[in-house]
Amino acid sequence: SVNLILLDPEELSPEGQAWLTDRRALHIRSVLKVVPGQCLRVGLIGGPLGNGRVRSLDTEGVKLDCAFESAVPAAPRVDLLLALPRPKAMKRLWTALAALGVGRILVTQAAKVERSYFDSHVLEPAFVRGRLLEGLEQAVDTHLPRVTLHRHFQKLIEDELDLLCPTPARWMAHPGSDRPCSDLPFPADGSRVLLAIGPEGGWTEDERTLLGGHGFIPFSGGDRIWRSEWAALLLTALVQERMAATDRSRLRPSL
Amino acid sequence: SVNLILLDPEELSPEGQAWLTDRRALHIRSVLKVVPGQCLRVGLIGGPLGNGRVRSLDTEGVKLDCAFESAVPAAPRVDLLLALPRPKAMKRLWTALAALGVGRILVTQAAKVERSYFDSHVLEPAFVRGRLLEGLEQAVDTHLPRVTLHRHFQKLIEDELDLLCPTPARWMAHPGSDRPCSDLPFPADGSRVLLAIGPEGGWTEDERTLLGGHGFIPFSGGDRIWRSEWAALLLTALVQERMAATDRSRLRPSL
Repeated sequence: SVNLILLDPEELSPEGQAWLTDRRALHIRSVLKVVPGQCLRVGLIGGPLGNGRVRSLDTEGVKLDCAFESAVPAAPRVDLLLALPRPKAMKRLWTALAALGVGRILVTQAAKVERSYFDSHVLEPAFVRGRLLEGLEQAVDTHLPRVTLHRHFQKLIEDELDLLCPTPARWMAHPGSDRPCSDLPFPADGSRVLLAIGPEGGWTEDERTLLGGHGFIPFSGGDRIWRSEWAALLLTALVQERMAATDRSRLRPSL
Repeated sequence: SVNLILLDPEELSPEGQAWLTDRRALHIRSVLKVVPGQCLRVGLIGGPLGNGRVRSLDTEGVKLDCAFESAVPAAPRVDLLLALPRPKAMKRLWTALAALGVGRILVTQAAKVERSYFDSHVLEPAFVRGRLLEGLEQAVDTHLPRVTLHRHFQKLIEDELDLLCPTPARWMAHPGSDRPCSDLPFPADGSRVLLAIGPEGGWTEDERTLLGGHGFIPFSGGDRIWRSEWAALLLTALVQERMAATDRSRLRPSL
């Protein structure tokens, strides 16, 4: 469901007016059924939330007068290194991951990923962007995850990863690990976490060795075997919850 | 994917033989491609895991000699009171919830649930059972969640709930709450938790009052708005992880 109307900065006039004619206009008219004068929750992609007062609406489009808050929502602190799941799963994941809130999504090849998956339409930029925006509209957030595709796992890990995600907090999901999520060294300084989620069947030993050599600590979400797309969602949520709990405990006076 | 062949106790001869002719036989022959003499991971629904040695297989079926472990996998300790989501979402949830591991799923009517949802084929017992078994086959578990349907919310909460789920640890997801999951009083004695997940749009104030009067403590998974089916999955996973962490900390010597 749509809990926020997202605007691209380019759609906004210097006076803060936006003129919508696409599915957002249709949604405002047909689902929200607002009348001129009413206000909607709006957000600037990559920027603040705010309110949009409906100035006019008809079959041609909707005109909004927007006023934005001064603060931008906190940026997600989890990045994902994700072995590409089958396209049907990836399609659902875009929306779900954007709704959960992640910074970067590095989509990678891996030994157990079928090469043909990379030719799927679910990786086309316009499709990806549309699905990600749906997730943000659902979760009321403006931070669009940055998505990059990597067809060469080794090259990504050895040559590119330190530039893309320089954080030292790197963890890899590995069902065989006996380290639970709660035993991971959560950074107390607010720095980012990079989470590596393997394909169905997991990372191979070679891949784990390469990841381990680049600072990834193995951990497990428990004894159960999860489908890779659920693992991506559930482990991201677990890590986010732990980060939030770590932050809360830092803010409390120690007794 | 299928990581376990599940057997109904009735399918097992006194000598531990099982004769499979349905999709499991097809899976063993066509996907696993085992030959006589090889062993498969098997599980008895509601009982232990074990090994099944393939005695014979042909186009008519597969014959297994089964030997089971003495211990039964630990039973899930989370039960769900779930406002019925739209059928398309419920269909996916059965498998995912069984894979996560829940004891009971009480599916209930609520003010924001469309009554017609209760007529959907995704609530038919045979369909539900098939989807739940898929989840167990994925996660390698034998505990089939017990599912009951409740068309009258107030009657369920006032008259039936204390018999179905007598646990005092009752929590309700409510995005407006400022209590995070980590501040919930996790039972250290290993008792069960009953988690109430509302429909899209949340529980109404009346529903929250009724739940609160029957011991449900409100909590929130964070600032973001999740679709109700994701909320069901993610909050169940968060609560399970916290329970496991509570258990682990109990087992550690205190310093």
